[in-house]
Amino acid sequence: MTVGTSPIRKDAVAKVTGKARYTDDFTMPGMLHAAYVRSTIAHGTVSRIDTSAARSMDGVEAVFTFEDVPDTLFATAGHPHSLDPDHVDVADRLLLTKHVRYHGDEVAIVVASSKLAAKEAARAVVVEYDELPVCVDAASALADEAPSIHADGNVIKSHEFIAGGDLNTAVDGADAVISGQYHTPVVQHCHMENHIAYAYMDDFEHIVVVTSTQIPHICRRVVGQALDMPWGNVRVIKPYIGGGFGNKQDVVLEPMVAFLTTRLDGRPIKLELDREECMTSTRTRHSAILDCRAAADEDGTLKAVDVAMTSNTGAYASHGHSIPSAGGAKSCNLYPRSVIRFSALTHYSNIPAAGAMRAYGSPQVIFGLECALEDIARKIGMDSVDFRIKNVARKMDINPLSNKPIRSAGIVECLEKGRELIQWDEKKRRFANQEGPVRRGLGVACFSYGSGTYPVCVEIAGCRLILNQDGSVHMQVGATEIGQGSDTAFAQMAADTLGISYDKVHVVTTQDTDVSPFDTGAYASRQTYVVAPAVKKAALELKTSVLEYVREMTGKETASLDIVDNNVVAANQPDCVIASLADVAIDAYYHKQRGGQLTADVSHKTRTNAPSFGCTFVDLEVDVPMCKIHIHQIFNVHDAGQIIHPLLAEGQVHGGMGMAVGMALFEELLVNPDNGRVLNNNLLDYKIPTFVDIPDLGCSFVETMEPTAAYGNKSLGEPPIISPGPAIRNAILDATGVAVNRMPMSPKVLFTHFHDAGLL
Amino acid sequence: MTVGTSPIRKDAVAKVTGKARYTDDFTMPGMLHAAYVRSTIAHGTVSRIDTSAARSMDGVEAVFTFEDVPDTLFATAGHPHSLDPDHVDVADRLLLTKHVRYHGDEVAIVVASSKLAAKEAARAVVVEYDELPVCVDAASALADEAPSIHADGNVIKSHEFIAGGDLNTAVDGADAVISGQYHTPVVQHCHMENHIAYAYMDDFEHIVVVTSTQIPHICRRVVGQALDMPWGNVRVIKPYIGGGFGNKQDVVLEPMVAFLTTRLDGRPIKLELDREECMTSTRTRHSAILDCRAAADEDGTLKAVDVAMTSNTGAYASHGHSIPSAGGAKSCNLYPRSVIRFSALTHYSNIPAAGAMRAYGSPQVIFGLECALEDIARKIGMDSVDFRIKNVARKMDINPLSNKPIRSAGIVECLEKGRELIQWDEKKRRFANQEGPVRRGLGVACFSYGSGTYPVCVEIAGCRLILNQDGSVHMQVGATEIGQGSDTAFAQMAADTLGISYDKVHVVTTQDTDVSPFDTGAYASRQTYVVAPAVKKAALELKTSVLEYVREMTGKETASLDIVDNNVVAANQPDCVIASLADVAIDAYYHKQRGGQLTADVSHKTRTNAPSFGCTFVDLEVDVPMCKIHIHQIFNVHDAGQIIHPLLAEGQVHGGMGMAVGMALFEELLVNPDNGRVLNNNLLDYKIPTFVDIPDLGCSFVETMEPTAAYGNKSLGEPPIISPGPAIRNAILDATGVAVNRMPMSPKVLFTHFHDAGLL
Repeated sequence: MTVGTSPIRKDAVAKVTGKARYTDDFTMPGMLHAAYVRSTIAHGTVSRIDTSAARSMDGVEAVFTFEDVPDTLFATAGHPHSLDPDHVDVADRLLLTKHVRYHGDEVAIVVASSKLAAKEAARAVVVEYDELPVCVDAASALADEAPSIHADGNVIKSHEFIAGGDLNTAVDGADAVISGQYHTPVVQHCHMENHIAYAYMDDFEHIVVVTSTQIPHICRRVVGQALDMPWGNVRVIKPYIGGGFGNKQDVVLEPMVAFLTTRLDGRPIKLELDREECMTSTRTRHSAILDCRAAADEDGTLKAVDVAMTSNTGAYASHGHSIPSAGGAKSCNLYPRSVIRFSALTHYSNIPAAGAMRAYGSPQVIFGLECALEDIARKIGMDSVDFRIKNVARKMDINPLSNKPIRSAGIVECLEKGRELIQWDEKKRRFANQEGPVRRGLGVACFSYGSGTYPVCVEIAGCRLILNQDGSVHMQVGATEIGQGSDTAFAQMAADTLGISYDKVHVVTTQDTDVSPFDTGAYASRQTYVVAPAVKKAALELKTSVLEYVREMTGKETASLDIVDNNVVAANQPDCVIASLADVAIDAYYHKQRGGQLTADVSHKTRTNAPSFGCTFVDLEVDVPMCKIHIHQIFNVHDAGQIIHPLLAEGQVHGGMGMAVGMALFEELLVNPDNGRVLNNNLLDYKIPTFVDIPDLGCSFVETMEPTAAYGNKSLGEPPIISPGPAIRNAILDATGVAVNRMPMSPKVLFTHFHDAGLL
Repeated sequence: MTVGTSPIRKDAVAKVTGKARYTDDFTMPGMLHAAYVRSTIAHGTVSRIDTSAARSMDGVEAVFTFEDVPDTLFATAGHPHSLDPDHVDVADRLLLTKHVRYHGDEVAIVVASSKLAAKEAARAVVVEYDELPVCVDAASALADEAPSIHADGNVIKSHEFIAGGDLNTAVDGADAVISGQYHTPVVQHCHMENHIAYAYMDDFEHIVVVTSTQIPHICRRVVGQALDMPWGNVRVIKPYIGGGFGNKQDVVLEPMVAFLTTRLDGRPIKLELDREECMTSTRTRHSAILDCRAAADEDGTLKAVDVAMTSNTGAYASHGHSIPSAGGAKSCNLYPRSVIRFSALTHYSNIPAAGAMRAYGSPQVIFGLECALEDIARKIGMDSVDFRIKNVARKMDINPLSNKPIRSAGIVECLEKGRELIQWDEKKRRFANQEGPVRRGLGVACFSYGSGTYPVCVEIAGCRLILNQDGSVHMQVGATEIGQGSDTAFAQMAADTLGISYDKVHVVTTQDTDVSPFDTGAYASRQTYVVAPAVKKAALELKTSVLEYVREMTGKETASLDIVDNNVVAANQPDCVIASLADVAIDAYYHKQRGGQLTADVSHKTRTNAPSFGCTFVDLEVDVPMCKIHIHQIFNVHDAGQIIHPLLAEGQVHGGMGMAVGMALFEELLVNPDNGRVLNNNLLDYKIPTFVDIPDLGCSFVETMEPTAAYGNKSLGEPPIISPGPAIRNAILDATGVAVNRMPMSPKVLFTHFHDAGLL
C-alpha cells in the first residue's frame, strides 16, 4: 500500500530539473503581447481617452478601450455555477471600465508585437478623469455621504446566524463575558508565478485559453459568460502552475485574452502581469474587523461566542461575501456545544479587489474567535489549553449550524499532543512572573475547517482511468495539481485500490477542458476529500473490468480473482499469479475476437463534508524595547484524518505556517487613505518572510479515521495557515500582558500597544 | 438527419484560413534540429566514419552514428500489434545502420541549433564504404549470386492460395485461356506535408512525440519497442496533417526523435525531411510483376483467374508481404464464382523501401487482373462490360476465400450506370473500325476492396462523448482525421444518433495517446466502417444516460422520452419539449444532490468486414505518332454502401482518380540499375499530374445498404485509385489494338509498344 507512505512526488523530477512547462514556457509563432492601461486615480470616471499616440507606435497592433468591450457584466469568482439564485456570484465587472474603482483599474489595453512595445504604448495612452471621493475602509465606504462605488451601493451583502441556542440567555447566564475588537490586514498571496494567460483560435468558433489557473473548468464557464458565447466553444488548458493560494481561483486574465483573440483574427495573444500589477490588480485577502464577545462559566464551560465581521472586498466583489460566510460556517465545528452567533457584512471600497486566499475567511474569523477565547479563559483564570480541551468538539458532537454529527474529531488529542511537544506545563511554570525587557510567552489557538464546499456549492469530481498495454494506467482527473501534490495523492489512491504499484500510475497533469473529466478545481481544500471517491470508484470499476476480462480469458470466476502487485492472482492465494496486468492488457487490446481498451470514466458528487481540526502552540520571546518577536518554537498539530502522503502533508503544514507567520508579524498591503494608492506594491517594500524570518516549524498529526471519506482523509491544504496568528497574539499577551488585537503585529504596531500599556 | 447530407466539414474554416496548426507550426523554446547523414551508395558497409569536423561546427550539439544507437531491431509498419506470430511485422531496422541498403540510408544524425546548421554539419561527416553489389529488381535480387541484403536473405515471404475449386480443372475445361505479364511502377505518395516530428521530455521517464502521422497509437507502440521502454511512457500527439496516403502509416521519424531527446536531456528536437528525402527515404508504393492467366467459356462465364505477383519492397520490409497478401485477398470478392489462384513473393532490393500506399496492393493486383479479364473477354469476343456484369459479385454470393456471404453488392448496378454515363454502346459503335493516327477507345475495369483489415488484424476503435453545459457534445475518437473528412463523418453519425444538430458536435481533432480512445488509425479505408459502431454505441449510451437523468429530474419513464433537435421530448409527441439538452446538462452538472458529468466511453471491436465495389469507365483518344493520351471522359462509379457525406465522398473519389491517372500515365520513381540511385527524387523530375493533366473527373454512387455497418456504409477512402489504371490500359487497347501491359503508360512506353506493334 502506498497510501500513508511518501513516494517521490509525480512532478518532482520535472520541477527540480526545470523541465516542467508553465504557461510562459509555451510560445506560438506570431504571438502578440498585451499590456493594460491602468487608472492613475482610485476613484472616478474617464472624461477623455486618447489612444492615437499609442496606436502609431512601432509594433502596436491594436488598442481597445472601455468603449470597445462587450456591455456584459460578469463575475470572476471561481465558484461552481449555482442553480440557487442566492448563490450566484455578483456580476459587477466589465472587461475594461470607464468608472475606475481603484488605483490600477483597467481602462484600456494595448496589443503589440512584444511585451515591451505593449508596455510602452500603454504608457502613451492619455487618460483624463473626473475624480470621485476615495473610500478605503468600512468607516468611509459605509458613511452616509460615501460615493456609490457600484450601482447598487457599497454594501454587497450581510447575513447573520445564531446556532446552538438563544444567545442572550447564554450570555446573560454566564459567569463571565468579554468583548473585543480585532483587525486583520490586507495581504497578498505572493505566489511565485505571476498571473499569465494566452489565447488563440483554431477557427472562428473556438477559443483556446492557456492559463495559470486553479480552476480550468470554471474559467471556461466565466469566459463563455463574459463573452456571451456557448461554453462548449471555449477550451481552457492548464499547464504546470507556480502557485495560486486562491489568487488563481479567480478568473482574472482569461476573459480578456479570449476577447482579444476574437478581435485579432484568432492570433495568439499573451498577457502576463508583472509583479507590481500582480500585487494590486489581481486579488488580495479581505481585511476584516471582528467585533467579538465570549461568555463562559467559572468551571470553564464556554457558553457563547459572538462574532460580528466587517469584510472589505475592495473595488470589485470577486468572492465577496462568500469569504465571511464560509469563514463563519466552517468555524462552527470547533466549539459546537456553545451558542454561536455570527454576523457579517461585506462592503466595497476603493482599494484592490479582494478574493479567495488560503483558508478563505477562516484566518480572519479564527483570529477574532481565538483571541476572544483566550481573553475569556484568562478572565475566568483557566489554563488556555485546559479551557480549549474542555470545550472543543468531540466525535459525534452535533454541529449546531448544520445539525449534522461530527464523525471524526481529534482536536482534543491535538491539544494534548501540542501541549506535550512544547512542554506547556513546565514552561508555564518557568515563564511565570517575568520581569525585564525581554520576556517569554506561550500561546495556543485552535481552528476547524471544512473539506470542500458542500452543502453551499455542488461538489463534483471526475476521474478517468485507461489501462495501458504495459500494465500501467493513465489517470485523468479534472482536479488540478497546483503544487500541493494532488497528482501524487491521487496516484497513491488509484494504485492501492487497483492493486498496482505507484510508479505504474501515470497522471495526466495538464487539464484540458475539452477532454479532462469535469471538476471545479483546486480550492476549499476540497480535492483529496471530494476527488478521492471518484478515483476510488474509477479504480474499482477498472479493476472489475479487468477481472471480468480475465474471466473471459480463463473461465475463472471474477469473485475468485484479485489484483495484487500488478498481477491478477487467485483471491485466496495471492502468490498464485494467473496473468500479469500487462498480459491481460495486451490480450484485451489485440485479441481479434474479444476485449477492447479497458477504461473507467467516473463523475462523482460528494454529498458530505468533514471538519478538520488543529491547533498551534507557540513559545516566543518579546523584546519589548525593540518591539521585536522571536519565535523559539512553533508547532501545528493537525487532525486531517488519515494522512495520504506524510512528507507532502508536512510540506503543506510548513508552507501554511510560514505564510501565517508572515501575516501575523510582517505582511500588510498598505494603502494611502487619501488617494487609495498602494504604498508597497512590490516584494521589496511588501515584507514576506524569508528563511531568516521563519523559525523551525514543528508539525505533527493526530490521525483520525473519517468515515465519510474514501481513504479516511480530511482537508489539509489551507488549514495550517489559520491558527498561528492568534497563537502568536496569545503568546505575546502571555509574555507581556498586552493584547495586540491586530495583525500584523509588526514593530510599529507593537510599539503603539506597548507604549499605550505603559511598557515603554 | 445529417448523414447523407453535406454539412460544412469540421476543419474547413481552420484549413482555408490557415489557422489549422500542423506539426511544423509548433515551436518550443530551445528547440533543436536534426539532420541525417545519408549513404551515398546503395549497398555496402561503412568502413570508416569521421564526425570530428561536424562536431566542431557552430551550433552543433551532438552527432550520433550507428555505433551509438540501441542494438534493437524493430519494425516500422503501421500495423496493429498482433498476438499471432505469423502476423508479426519483420523487425529488420536499426535507428542508424552500418550496413547501408539503399542510396540514402541513414548512417548518422546531427543535432544543431538550426536546421541549416544541422544540414551543413551532416555534409561534413566523412563516411567511407566497402561496397557490395547492387540489386534493384527481382531478377537481380533473386539471382543465385545476389548479395544478402538482410541476414535472412532477400526473400521476405511468399504464399499462395487457391479458392473456389480446382484450378487446373477450371482452366483445362475452359473454352479459352489467356496469359500475360503486367508491370506496375514504384510511385511516391507526394503528400503536401513532408514527414516531420519532434520530441521532448517533461521528466526522465516520459517522452512526448508530436508528429504528422496517420497512426498515433501504433506510433507509440513502435517507439516503445525501438527504444525498449514501456509503451505507457511514450505519448504521441498528432496535430493536423497535410496528407499521408499510407506513407504516414509507417513509423518513420518518431523513434529517432524520441531517441535523440533521451540522449539530449529531454530537450525538444525537431526532424523534418525535405522533399528530396521524402521522395526516397520514407516509403514508396511497391512495384510489382504480375503473371496472370484467365480462363472463360464462350458464353462469357469466367472459369478461373490466376495471379502470381512478385513484389519489390526495396531496402527494408516495412509493410512488406502484407501488400500482396492484402491485395490478393481483397480482390476475391470481385469474381467470386470463378476459381481464384493467387500467389505472391516479396523480396528485398537496394532501392528505397516501399510501404503502405493508398489501396495497399490492390492497384497492382487489379491492374493484372483487369488487364487479363479484358484480354479474355476480347478473346471470346464478348463485350467488356457484358462480360464483367455476367461474372461480378451479386448480393449473397459467397467469397470463395473467406467462405463468408457478400451481404451487399452493387457492382452490377455500378457497371450499368457507368455504361450509361459514358454512352458505352453508342460510342462502341461510333469508334469501331477506326483508322488514322488519332483513335478513340473505351475502357472499363472493376475492383473490390475491403472495409478494414479484419480478420487479418484486430479491428478496434474507441469513442468518448462528453455532454457540455450548453447542450453541445465533445467527441474524442482515436481514429485520425488526415484530410479525408473523418471528423466530419463521425460528427454526423453522433449527431443523428443523439438527436442533436451537427454543429453541436465538437470533434477533438488532435489525438493524444495519453487520453484519446484507442484506435489503430487511418488506413485500410477502415475508419467509417470500424469507428462508426463505436460512435453509434457511445451516442446511444450517452442518450440513455440523458434520458435516465431526465427520469430522475421529472419522474417520466425513460422509454417515454426521446431526443429530437437538441431537446428531450415525449417519444410519442416530438413537438412536446420537456427540456432542452442544455437545461438537462446544467442540472446534471450543478445540482447539488443528483447527477454528474454525463459521458460515454466506448471501445469496440469489429468482427466483420464488408467488400466495397466499383468500376471505372474511360473514353480516351490516342495520338499514336505523338504517343499521347487525351482522356475525354472518365467516370468512377462506386458501391460504398450508404454515403455519409456526398460532397466529401465525391472529393475522395476525385482525389483517388487523380492519383490513379498519374500512376497510369506519368508517375514512376526511376532508379539507375547500376548504382541504385534515384534519378527523379524531386517534384520537378518526378511527374505528378497537375490541373492541366487531369481530365474532368466523373463520379457516381450506387448506394447499397450494408447490413453489418452501423450506418450502412462501406469503405471509400482508397478504392477510387484502383481501377482507373487498367481502365485506361483497356481503352488504349480498344483504340489501338495494342496491349500496353505496363504502368505508367508514358509516351516512352507507348512508343516502344506502338513501334513493336508496327503502328510506328
